[in-house]
Amino acid sequence: MRVLVTGASGFTAHYLLKLLAADCRLELHLADCASGAPGKIMSCDLTQKGEVEELIKGIRPERIYHLAGSFTNNYDIDYPANVLSTKNILDSLLKLALPSRVLLIGSSAEYGLVNAGDNPVNEDQPLRPCRIHGLTKVYQTQLMRFYCKVYGMDLVMARPFNLSGEGKRISKLMFIGKVHEQIEKIKNGEISKVIVGNVESKRDYIDVKQAVKFYQKIMEHGIAGEVYNVGSGRSIRMRDLLNLLLKEAGLDMKVVEEKVLPVADQTDVSEIYADLRKINGL
Amino acid sequence: MRVLVTGASGFTAHYLLKLLAADCRLELHLADCASGAPGKIMSCDLTQKGEVEELIKGIRPERIYHLAGSFTNNYDIDYPANVLSTKNILDSLLKLALPSRVLLIGSSAEYGLVNAGDNPVNEDQPLRPCRIHGLTKVYQTQLMRFYCKVYGMDLVMARPFNLSGEGKRISKLMFIGKVHEQIEKIKNGEISKVIVGNVESKRDYIDVKQAVKFYQKIMEHGIAGEVYNVGSGRSIRMRDLLNLLLKEAGLDMKVVEEKVLPVADQTDVSEIYADLRKINGL
Repeated sequence: MRVLVTGASGFTAHYLLKLLAADCRLELHLADCASGAPGKIMSCDLTQKGEVEELIKGIRPERIYHLAGSFTNNYDIDYPANVLSTKNILDSLLKLALPSRVLLIGSSAEYGLVNAGDNPVNEDQPLRPCRIHGLTKVYQTQLMRFYCKVYGMDLVMARPFNLSGEGKRISKLMFIGKVHEQIEKIKNGEISKVIVGNVESKRDYIDVKQAVKFYQKIMEHGIAGEVYNVGSGRSIRMRDLLNLLLKEAGLDMKVVEEKVLPVADQTDVSEIYADLRKINGL
Repeated sequence: MRVLVTGASGFTAHYLLKLLAADCRLELHLADCASGAPGKIMSCDLTQKGEVEELIKGIRPERIYHLAGSFTNNYDIDYPANVLSTKNILDSLLKLALPSRVLLIGSSAEYGLVNAGDNPVNEDQPLRPCRIHGLTKVYQTQLMRFYCKVYGMDLVMARPFNLSGEGKRISKLMFIGKVHEQIEKIKNGEISKVIVGNVESKRDYIDVKQAVKFYQKIMEHGIAGEVYNVGSGRSIRMRDLLNLLLKEAGLDMKVVEEKVLPVADQTDVSEIYADLRKINGL
């Protein structure tokens, strides 16, 4: 079976590819926008319709794990990366009349403002994003539903909560990545403090190795048009997570400097964790 | 009070401006993307951030009726016209720190697939658009909610059902406009038949003169972040509407040729009409 993985040089793909490579029935094709990506990863700017069409035409994938995307919270970056890239893939499949199954990656940021009592949040929770990244992922969800309904496409969506894993692999835009970067700098004597913002919020962290197993499960068994939470089903206070990360590095909270933002960030969600009944029922 | 109206040379604006002009406290500023628009209508391509900023900076409007938009069902046209134009206006207001109240125009097409039992549809009905135009209007709704929540902006939204009014003013992309155009051609001896598709669906038609009164009401009394249906609260079968239009022109159903689409259009909604309790409660 011909499988295309986009965002193939990214954090998540690193783990997904290990999983997929174990299945010798799969013929893996990898694409990423990063030019000079390692190995046999093809370079493709997924925001460019023509490039995507060429890619899809060349591979004729039967399955697509569309991991590529961005979370910069800059609309001019996240809209093309998260919405247009998806639209280009779906339009190419339509044009070429390929009945591929596509796994799209949403985000728990789509839920946005959840009240404490809404936890664990299930997939029917209203989507009230409060970050640009989450807003563009909501667009992507709407786009998926549209293409399923109108064109009968075979699309499924994972809605991952926060991913954890090796610090050095995680993007520096994420909390773990930011902390890891500063810990490394402390070890190298470049800085003496780990500076963080609010660490009182509680978030659902799932190990990326478990997350990609869920992605595979959704690809294999998910119902077309449906969204599935991917999380651990429990929350951890960011402060406790920070403590764990420091401990692993042989440091403690003494190196931490908490910076309270000048204006209270009213859009910060105090606690969110996933209801996993839907994915566990697959 | 300085009021900006976008889409000022369009069908709806023709009627809204009559209403607003009667209020001498208002200082009206008009903008449209159409170059060479009549009267004192400024030309502004609302999809261009820079042009929008200049426009907003020049007027410093206290109220904006954002009527501009498109319904071509071509994503590459409707996305910039319906989503980016709105984003450019909101970003300009943020940048200039103007606390303007903005009325945005959604669409009943956002509801998309409603079941017969869902009628009359209220504003909390799930949004399941089945046309590109409706999809982009859903994006716009998400964008509005985001800007209200995150930036505390003063935005309200009308969700109009089908507008009726003088045939010659209505866009030829709309059913009434299409029928009117063909009636005119019959009168001129250019064609002998009015060709229509499925006319069995039932739709909520509201006279544009009443619709703009609702728009004004939402602008005056609507709650920030809220969406209000604008409709008649009842449905009319398209066949009966067609009959009425023909009658007005001194013709009858004998001139009509119904073309059944080769593939059943499964995304066509058989009946939809508005629940008006929310707007009537304002």
